[in-house]
Amino acid sequence: MTQPRLLETVAAEAYSYPLLIRRLLPKPETTSQEIVSDGRRFGYAAFIERIHRLASALSQFGVKAGDTVAVMDWDSHRYLECYFAIPMLGAILQTVNVRLAPAAIGFTLRQSGASTLLYHDDFKPLADVLLPGLQIERSVTFGGSAADGFEALIETGDPGYVFEDFDENAIATTFHTTGTTGDPKQVFFSHRQLVLHTLAAAATIANQPIGQGVTRNDVYMPITPMFHVHAWGMPYVATMLGMKQVYPGRYDPATILALKRDERVTYSHCVPTILRMVIDVARANALDLAPWTMMIGGSALPEALAEEAEGVGVIALSGYGMSETGPVVTLARSKPGEAVGVRCRAGFPLPLVEVAVDQSRGGELTIRAPWLTQGYSLQDASDALWEGGRLHTGDIAELDADGAVRIVDRLKDVIKTGGEWVSSLELESLLMEAAGVAEAAVVGIPDARWGERPVAFIVRGAGPAVTEGSLRHAVSERAQTGAISRYAIPDAIYFCEVLPRTSVGKVDKKALRETAITSASLASA
Amino acid sequence: MTQPRLLETVAAEAYSYPLLIRRLLPKPETTSQEIVSDGRRFGYAAFIERIHRLASALSQFGVKAGDTVAVMDWDSHRYLECYFAIPMLGAILQTVNVRLAPAAIGFTLRQSGASTLLYHDDFKPLADVLLPGLQIERSVTFGGSAADGFEALIETGDPGYVFEDFDENAIATTFHTTGTTGDPKQVFFSHRQLVLHTLAAAATIANQPIGQGVTRNDVYMPITPMFHVHAWGMPYVATMLGMKQVYPGRYDPATILALKRDERVTYSHCVPTILRMVIDVARANALDLAPWTMMIGGSALPEALAEEAEGVGVIALSGYGMSETGPVVTLARSKPGEAVGVRCRAGFPLPLVEVAVDQSRGGELTIRAPWLTQGYSLQDASDALWEGGRLHTGDIAELDADGAVRIVDRLKDVIKTGGEWVSSLELESLLMEAAGVAEAAVVGIPDARWGERPVAFIVRGAGPAVTEGSLRHAVSERAQTGAISRYAIPDAIYFCEVLPRTSVGKVDKKALRETAITSASLASA
Repeated sequence: MTQPRLLETVAAEAYSYPLLIRRLLPKPETTSQEIVSDGRRFGYAAFIERIHRLASALSQFGVKAGDTVAVMDWDSHRYLECYFAIPMLGAILQTVNVRLAPAAIGFTLRQSGASTLLYHDDFKPLADVLLPGLQIERSVTFGGSAADGFEALIETGDPGYVFEDFDENAIATTFHTTGTTGDPKQVFFSHRQLVLHTLAAAATIANQPIGQGVTRNDVYMPITPMFHVHAWGMPYVATMLGMKQVYPGRYDPATILALKRDERVTYSHCVPTILRMVIDVARANALDLAPWTMMIGGSALPEALAEEAEGVGVIALSGYGMSETGPVVTLARSKPGEAVGVRCRAGFPLPLVEVAVDQSRGGELTIRAPWLTQGYSLQDASDALWEGGRLHTGDIAELDADGAVRIVDRLKDVIKTGGEWVSSLELESLLMEAAGVAEAAVVGIPDARWGERPVAFIVRGAGPAVTEGSLRHAVSERAQTGAISRYAIPDAIYFCEVLPRTSVGKVDKKALRETAITSASLASA
Repeated sequence: MTQPRLLETVAAEAYSYPLLIRRLLPKPETTSQEIVSDGRRFGYAAFIERIHRLASALSQFGVKAGDTVAVMDWDSHRYLECYFAIPMLGAILQTVNVRLAPAAIGFTLRQSGASTLLYHDDFKPLADVLLPGLQIERSVTFGGSAADGFEALIETGDPGYVFEDFDENAIATTFHTTGTTGDPKQVFFSHRQLVLHTLAAAATIANQPIGQGVTRNDVYMPITPMFHVHAWGMPYVATMLGMKQVYPGRYDPATILALKRDERVTYSHCVPTILRMVIDVARANALDLAPWTMMIGGSALPEALAEEAEGVGVIALSGYGMSETGPVVTLARSKPGEAVGVRCRAGFPLPLVEVAVDQSRGGELTIRAPWLTQGYSLQDASDALWEGGRLHTGDIAELDADGAVRIVDRLKDVIKTGGEWVSSLELESLLMEAAGVAEAAVVGIPDARWGERPVAFIVRGAGPAVTEGSLRHAVSERAQTGAISRYAIPDAIYFCEVLPRTSVGKVDKKALRETAITSASLASA
């Protein structure tokens, strides 16, 4: 094509506006809401002053643009202040996944190149082990029983600190995927990406049907760790809108529900496991939690769970994204009268998000959006992620007639056996239908004859005592009706007390697969 | 400062996402709404197909990236399709202000460098006069009695036309200010700017209090000409959200109110003059127009008018912007129980918008945002617009305690007399308080002794017959109480049937000033 004509900066002093995170801060006068955290509460004027002081103090402390500052904390106002102050300096915020194994945390800290570490006293034992192996030049501890280094730092800062402009493509944040296969992989997000995600997410959640979104008068509380994909980007959205924000600290059911009640929280987000816990506590105490909208991510929202949530006054709906997508790319919604299952789909693309299903790769969902990581630290993994110019999610999806994305399975959870594809998710759903089954997880293990074979892990629940025989019989019956492939009947069914989970609450299929392989080899020995 | 670390594109095929207007189009499956215009209605699938066909046809017709296509039409689906198809080709859409004098229209078309002209048959007499003096290589007429060249063009287009990516800083649209002083000035907007404005505006209007904004289920109808600052950007917002859109064609009160009723319109925007007309028709026909939210711009929303609007079921609120600001930079809102005047202020900055009041320039409002014109075609005017790196609005503003912007006056409408500043807006308000005054306009005219002197123009209304003496007496009384400077008592008060207005409905103070100067010189002769 011929070239379009580019905008010229005619005026000598025209301001070319870079999309920087500091631009998300509202004028404090425009909101009378508060940030509540750690038993304290700040108005936006105080909150924004603290960000200026923190940046100033970090700068005096030796942190320069281009440096990486790692943070280990629970969900707190401190973390929120770091979300802004560190990138606003031109430095990089590394949010450390504190639920990984210590060796893996060390790996992520080393790879981040962090020269400064801010950590909660609860992580002191961990820091004591890790620090000798790292290139940390300066660190600050706070909370717990130690002297509060964070407050001391803020005290030394200048409230009138002036932030300079810089390139909107500067890296603002880095963190690591949870690494279900191999080492955690580092992802990178720029100021431009985070500003665009915030705008698109704000336009979306504010446009949800009543009771499924937020307006600036809602009260926001994350129940997703802030080290995990920018707490799904919501702290930036809530701040831009000047909303009241509540940070729950280390998760504890009683604290979460007390904060919900006392601070009148109306909007949260969490993984299904946390929602399960909230429902259980609410039932045990006969609580009605309405109004409370919960965006559910991390893993699929089961329809039964969404229905149980409604029973205690919680409107649950799916969001979809991953560490690589910065995070949110689709959000579910339902119209009045629609079944709850409609809200359990991954949902509708946010503005600017392009979704496609790649049939040549088994129906894998691929994405384009202006806020996706442009790669990992590893060349090969990066190239695979972006093969053909589209981000490969590793999820198998279908597009419904109304344009909503429905995740059918994880690509790596699909089992190829006897030349046929068996969906582990489908098999899990079928197993969970049996009375007496509380949880089910299915993995594929290598098989010389069939390529792979499915193996199931079951957690027994209330109801009749299920056995391997009874479950295999149930699957066989469904196979005879054609509901599922006859290759899907599991080779082995193991019973366990709990399923192993990753640091972010997903079923750890890597661990299950290893267990299954070991058991299979023991059985054949 | 040291340099921040820039995002690297690690993956060979990572997609670097330019912010292009085509990205605002939703997946048609995600909305069941329609575009209604000219007695026709299209679903989004048909609408998006038409955009592809139009672009393809224009391309076959010879339009290339970098070319300018000028459009003269009433508010229609055609205009909306041009808002997308022309920039999506990498070409530039020049929206022609058809209300200017023919010579001025010729000036704007020549300056735009348009080589293609699409025009409604209603403008054929104008085109016949102008075309010989222009470099238009190809033109298309439609509507009215002529064969419909627009539909014929669309017929020839390929619905599968594939749009290429290009630089997000490509110029998407140009148009001209209405030129209250001197020639109209050309302004320029890029794809990036329009995408960012759309996101920020969508996040804002969706976050308004109930009844003051929109959600995707609202029905949108502009009552602002689409040649005027992208119809305030709302067609892009409505399209991105997949809203039902209604285009009223040439404005006619009966048509507008019939469309409002039949299509259940709930969100519009217009200048105060149109709102006045809507209220009058509603009253004459005893109509209740609720629910109908109207964003009011172009000139200040008088509190009395907003109250009258409520009387017929219309919630009116101010938006603020200008041709140079692409357009919206602030939007008013009120909380339950707040007085209607709260919504008559310019309102709160949109996300990313930085407002400041420059006391060194008489309290002029200055702005930074990512969607402001970077200059005009004229170097001097551009440099003045952006002096000191901030866009100068020419409006005098105050910031209220809640952070809202309140426009006090136009800088050029402030009268400097005897070393004191007299606000023409304030004097107009005071004159309008007098029973028997329907409208008042005040201008300053040069005066050898005082620098400038105020002169008033009055349109008499219902009530007692006001005279020059009675009005001067009323102002004197207020001057004695100190409510207004004694220098503010007008030198002359003229009575007229109507006030002259510009092409976009603002009082034409340039014309009034000329009249006043002529009258003054006649009087002293």
